[in-house]
Amino acid sequence: MSNRVELPVVDTVAVPCCPPLTERPFTAEEAETAAPMFKALGDPVRLRLFSAVASHEGGEACVCDISEVGVSQPTVSHHLKKLKEAGLLTSERRGTWVYYRVEPSVLAAMGKLLAPPAGA
Amino acid sequence: MSNRVELPVVDTVAVPCCPPLTERPFTAEEAETAAPMFKALGDPVRLRLFSAVASHEGGEACVCDISEVGVSQPTVSHHLKKLKEAGLLTSERRGTWVYYRVEPSVLAAMGKLLAPPAGA
Repeated sequence: MSNRVELPVVDTVAVPCCPPLTERPFTAEEAETAAPMFKALGDPVRLRLFSAVASHEGGEACVCDISEVGVSQPTVSHHLKKLKEAGLLTSERRGTWVYYRVEPSVLAAMGKLLAPPAGA
Repeated sequence: MSNRVELPVVDTVAVPCCPPLTERPFTAEEAETAAPMFKALGDPVRLRLFSAVASHEGGEACVCDISEVGVSQPTVSHHLKKLKEAGLLTSERRGTWVYYRVEPSVLAAMGKLLAPPAGA
């Protein structure tokens, strides 16, 4: 009997840092942490791909599930990787395909950044 | 007596269009409308400036109020204009200075885009 344990491969997710944008001026460090998440959604093709993954059955999708955006599979893969690097998606390889999933805590934290000022 | 009516100068604001990103895949048109707002916040300096305006007393600020971000006034003005073009800020000239104000409806609409999926 072996003591070897198969640990699951877990992607690290950049959970955002920061109070609502309306609460007090962001520090340089907070802005450096939060800006890449907004930037990742600042491209129309990436925004469509993010929405395609986020709204897909089961909350996850592989490149093989995404065809209606009108860009090639390598382009889809490239943009999904960018979204992952920004901490908005996690991924898991299963056989041939990499499945992407939206990280709900990151969505919620980005939504909190955009909370309107109290009393607005 | 004159029939001339002074109409107020109102900045047009690009109020976003779209359902939550998790609800269904965005169309190309929706992505083209929403992506520029995310892109505008995707730069660390712009994000700090947006936060400085959004959190300033009275919910508005001019370039003269913003000094702690560590960039020159022309750079501040340039970025505030970009945020205005993206529909995130409105502006009004008063004497020497242009005052910028966060459009709360746009913040709320962007927050809605990022709403986590129902049941998450």
